[in-house]
Amino acid sequence: MSHYYRLVVSCPDQVGIVARVSSFIAQHGGSITEASQHSDLQTGRFFMRYEILADSIGMSAGELEEAFAPIAATFDMQWALVDTQKRRNVVIMVSRESHCLVDLLYRWQAGELDCNIVGIISNHPDMRALSEWYEIPYFHIAVDPTNKQASFDAVQAQIEALDADCIVLARYMQILPPALCEHYAGQIINIHHSFLPSFAGAKPYHQAYARGVKLIGATCHYVTEELDAGPIIEQDIHRVSHCHTPADLVRFGRDVEKSVLARGLRWHLEDRVLIDGNKTVVFG
Amino acid sequence: MSHYYRLVVSCPDQVGIVARVSSFIAQHGGSITEASQHSDLQTGRFFMRYEILADSIGMSAGELEEAFAPIAATFDMQWALVDTQKRRNVVIMVSRESHCLVDLLYRWQAGELDCNIVGIISNHPDMRALSEWYEIPYFHIAVDPTNKQASFDAVQAQIEALDADCIVLARYMQILPPALCEHYAGQIINIHHSFLPSFAGAKPYHQAYARGVKLIGATCHYVTEELDAGPIIEQDIHRVSHCHTPADLVRFGRDVEKSVLARGLRWHLEDRVLIDGNKTVVFG
Amino acid sequence: MSHYYRLVVSCPDQVGIVARVSSFIAQHGGSITEASQHSDLQTGRFFMRYEILADSIGMSAGELEEAFAPIAATFDMQWALVDTQKRRNVVIMVSRESHCLVDLLYRWQAGELDCNIVGIISNHPDMRALSEWYEIPYFHIAVDPTNKQASFDAVQAQIEALDADCIVLARYMQILPPALCEHYAGQIINIHHSFLPSFAGAKPYHQAYARGVKLIGATCHYVTEELDAGPIIEQDIHRVSHCHTPADLVRFGRDVEKSVLARGLRWHLEDRVLIDGNKTVVFG
Amino acid sequence: MSHYYRLVVSCPDQVGIVARVSSFIAQHGGSITEASQHSDLQTGRFFMRYEILADSIGMSAGELEEAFAPIAATFDMQWALVDTQKRRNVVIMVSRESHCLVDLLYRWQAGELDCNIVGIISNHPDMRALSEWYEIPYFHIAVDPTNKQASFDAVQAQIEALDADCIVLARYMQILPPALCEHYAGQIINIHHSFLPSFAGAKPYHQAYARGVKLIGATCHYVTEELDAGPIIEQDIHRVSHCHTPADLVRFGRDVEKSVLARGLRWHLEDRVLIDGNKTVVFG
Repeated sequence: MSHYYRLVVSCPDQVGIVARVSSFIAQHGGSITEASQHSDLQTGRFFMRYEILADSIGMSAGELEEAFAPIAATFDMQWALVDTQKRRNVVIMVSRESHCLVDLLYRWQAGELDCNIVGIISNHPDMRALSEWYEIPYFHIAVDPTNKQASFDAVQAQIEALDADCIVLARYMQILPPALCEHYAGQIINIHHSFLPSFAGAKPYHQAYARGVKLIGATCHYVTEELDAGPIIEQDIHRVSHCHTPADLVRFGRDVEKSVLARGLRWHLEDRVLIDGNKTVVFG
Repeated sequence: MSHYYRLVVSCPDQVGIVARVSSFIAQHGGSITEASQHSDLQTGRFFMRYEILADSIGMSAGELEEAFAPIAATFDMQWALVDTQKRRNVVIMVSRESHCLVDLLYRWQAGELDCNIVGIISNHPDMRALSEWYEIPYFHIAVDPTNKQASFDAVQAQIEALDADCIVLARYMQILPPALCEHYAGQIINIHHSFLPSFAGAKPYHQAYARGVKLIGATCHYVTEELDAGPIIEQDIHRVSHCHTPADLVRFGRDVEKSVLARGLRWHLEDRVLIDGNKTVVFG
Repeated sequence: MSHYYRLVVSCPDQVGIVARVSSFIAQHGGSITEASQHSDLQTGRFFMRYEILADSIGMSAGELEEAFAPIAATFDMQWALVDTQKRRNVVIMVSRESHCLVDLLYRWQAGELDCNIVGIISNHPDMRALSEWYEIPYFHIAVDPTNKQASFDAVQAQIEALDADCIVLARYMQILPPALCEHYAGQIINIHHSFLPSFAGAKPYHQAYARGVKLIGATCHYVTEELDAGPIIEQDIHRVSHCHTPADLVRFGRDVEKSVLARGLRWHLEDRVLIDGNKTVVFG
Repeated sequence: MSHYYRLVVSCPDQVGIVARVSSFIAQHGGSITEASQHSDLQTGRFFMRYEILADSIGMSAGELEEAFAPIAATFDMQWALVDTQKRRNVVIMVSRESHCLVDLLYRWQAGELDCNIVGIISNHPDMRALSEWYEIPYFHIAVDPTNKQASFDAVQAQIEALDADCIVLARYMQILPPALCEHYAGQIINIHHSFLPSFAGAKPYHQAYARGVKLIGATCHYVTEELDAGPIIEQDIHRVSHCHTPADLVRFGRDVEKSVLARGLRWHLEDRVLIDGNKTVVFG
């Protein structure tokens, strides 16, 4: 895989940002292989993402960061310079439904997800054998309904011990405490098994069946304190009819969930997802 | 177009319904060109629809109806025998947005919708010229916000004068009074410009934009007293991204709305939509 | 899982088939949970599939078969009575690309595919560890380019030894000899990585890239002697753009291939796919 | 509608193009509301499109063009500066099938297509009344099968008299002579009623029915001398099954054709489609 630096920026919009940034890159001989920009006309914020061939620029990521910092300050940027040789650490959290986990692990092994999967945390022991097949450490941390706080303290300690940059809730089925959500804001990705905002909360496929909808869906979003209300990264749907039972909806849903989660996570790992209030900019 | 009788049945499920009905048809030499059945395992109801070549059976629709009545009584059927030579009378109601009306009129003229369009009722005068081009009577009945009841009495009187079998709300933008909804239960079709149950009520595209969804949709449903809550006939979606403004969502939505409404209406006119509580069976 | 008998029929169309068959089922108290019919107006053939609750009928599959045989003879039927308690034996053939195999094995373990997977045959040793994880016998039969016939004789011997009812080419990448195709006509399912008839033959994603198409696809079909020309069971597509390299097309294609193959195989195993000349009737 | 300048560029790729162009825009105070770039790694060509708020830059389109010309020369650019206040002249060519024409005219009237429709040319008189309803000049130029050249000379003379910038073949059903294709290279848009490269040539829906495909499609492309082989702008599909007759395929196809053509034409009119050999870059 080629070596890139990714420059990801969000700032108040004004004339000259692209000129200033692209001139800076050009002055250092940087070859931009992919460039994306977006102006949110309602909020007045500007977003950009550049993918720069690392070899084309005669600097380390640290040096480039240092050189760029004054420009970033001028435009009041929230920004990051990502070195693709430093892979992110991802923790996957899972309950008893295996489809998303199986899919993510396959894609990871196939090279579709550029990250280290440093651990799998579950409130059940069921997925241990699968994890071991992929040689990934498995942590069974039961969630005690009478003392959830203690359980989630253990979860958080484990996440920190694994030095995770990103947490994927691959059908974890437990609500994370607000403090944990806030600590990892913009780094926790959930798959919800409905086409949000329809059918938030529990048993969405049964809700969908009861309402008689003709399409079911799944939603990949960043986790925030409010349940199933964080910024949406990706959604997709599957057509259903009166022939289909709730069990069929669950089965179709598994396919939608895993593809939506995989796309969302891949885009996150490629720094294509920028948070814009309670929405996302996705440079696809 | 060929001449068919359509037998449409809903009844409590039990062994032998298909045998009894299909034997009856066969005894009279009836050639069944399309047959659909469905058992709702949760409610225990059975649904069927037969399309029978009229020429293959040596009876008029009235005679066939009379001959079938005892079987219908045996199985406690809700049923109808539809003669496709007797076209339904459809009234379209519209406000100022023309896209659904334009689309329906084109399809009607192209032979995609097997019905008489007997009149167009609007609370605005805007669509008169278009209606006249298609030689369809246009009735401008303004809705007086201080006396809606009188306005809708006039609407209902006009619908009755037109002897309508089906009323299509092609973006009518007014809430029909409960009595009217009940009087024409199962005969009023609405297009709602969201993927219900998300974003019921007003300005759904703006709601969708604000929530940052990645897909927008439209829903064709039967109108009931409760707003946007009736049995869903058809839904579809269109992909959107951060690039798109609310105006773009409205524009994409127009395309989804018109195709979803056209499909729903066509299926209704072909007696493919059977109401099952607050859901529909659609024999596609 | 409930126990069903499936009656699957294809015969010249005429009046009274449904009446005769459904009366037969009803006389024996059979409860039909799913019924599908189709008349091909161009060829004059009739197709039907009944799913009958086994417990509702006081006979074994063998007794039912015997009782039905005279009716079948009357109507010149090609037919089968399938007992769902007797699971089919499936052999999967694979080369070095693992995505379809991984997907099928996961679905099989999750209960989505009602069959025994009795063996995996490959011209490469790569998938042995995966097969063993699922405790499925793995047969590495190299294909000798200078003596393909001997290789395929070994393949066929292995298939026969495994008593296979169905052979799935899950990206096997070798052309089967005509005799093998004919021996297992209607029982070999292939996934071709293009939207047939576009881009038959080798390297379809590169062909698609070169042509600049905006959608790529995959096709699941029965294998016949003529390459990539057998009856199509299922197809699907994925949107692509100028941004995407051939490698991206391959990656998107993997997802389409595996879902199309899994759907096609599931329908085949549920006896929903009836061959109609070089086309299929799929009772979905 | 806001007033924009659109800068559209294609040139050999090298470091510094974006920097040079964006600095030039910024020096003149230009506010870029939309920016798109693409590098074709196989051909080494670079493509870009900027949408600049005209009021933000203190120059006329002519002055801007003059100022930019030296930069364009430096980078060996093929380029255009488009002033959105100068609307393009579009000629629509049509035969007897009206669906695409009806759809385009509706969208044009609704403001979805930013152009002047200066005339409709047809080899049949059928669409005259429709054209007159929209107050668009209609030219019936019959195509004489014994002297096609004379007919197409008349067509070309009419196109030239109308000062057309773009010609839309909205199901024109006649093959244009090579000289006409070449004269208007990159300006003639056709809708083909299949998912190309499948089913080029005549009666594609019947070809699709005969092959038993499960999806049908339509393709919008630039016209070149070779039939149905020009650069593809947009494609889409519709799912079909064994239930559907060739007439159903034609009916579904009409909907796909009109939406694909409308999208393709809109993108062309917005200068989003750049030709890259026999492919297109579409800045969506």
